[in-house]
Amino acid sequence: MEVKINISLKKGVLDPQGRAVESALISLGYSEANNVRIGKQITLEIEAEDASRAQQRAARMCETLLANTVIEDYSIEIADPS
Amino acid sequence: MEVKINISLKKGVLDPQGRAVESALISLGYSEANNVRIGKQITLEIEAEDASRAQQRAARMCETLLANTVIEDYSIEIADPS
Repeated sequence: MEVKINISLKKGVLDPQGRAVESALISLGYSEANNVRIGKQITLEIEAEDASRAQQRAARMCETLLANTVIEDYSIEIADPS
Repeated sequence: MEVKINISLKKGVLDPQGRAVESALISLGYSEANNVRIGKQITLEIEAEDASRAQQRAARMCETLLANTVIEDYSIEIADPS
């Protein structure tokens, strides 16, 4: 089952990488860009009987390894819930 | 207009970070994880009259700064196409 995990910094957590990209965009002339935040998107395949089991295992992976839940939020999408 | 940009390595491009995460997952007991790939998700606000204009500007930003189009693909989602 193909799973997409989006990991982003929580609101209120400073994002220096996003700030740097925003400054770069503005200095390149993209003055309409605002509030740039940079997160991770992890795609993986999980062998599981059904989508809810895959979702559960992905959440476990996030909690134990993929995300730092003190400062990051994650969301899980099952791409082909067949 | 809120815009999400997903940047991922093209198929066939080696992803050492994904490999490392996959090994870590497997050694933590998640043997069902497979083919882990890691990309970036950039969220930003773009001031634009309409969604198609925002989409166009975002594509320009990807081409000139955000993505390395030699090895990366990008996709753009307009979150609130109001």
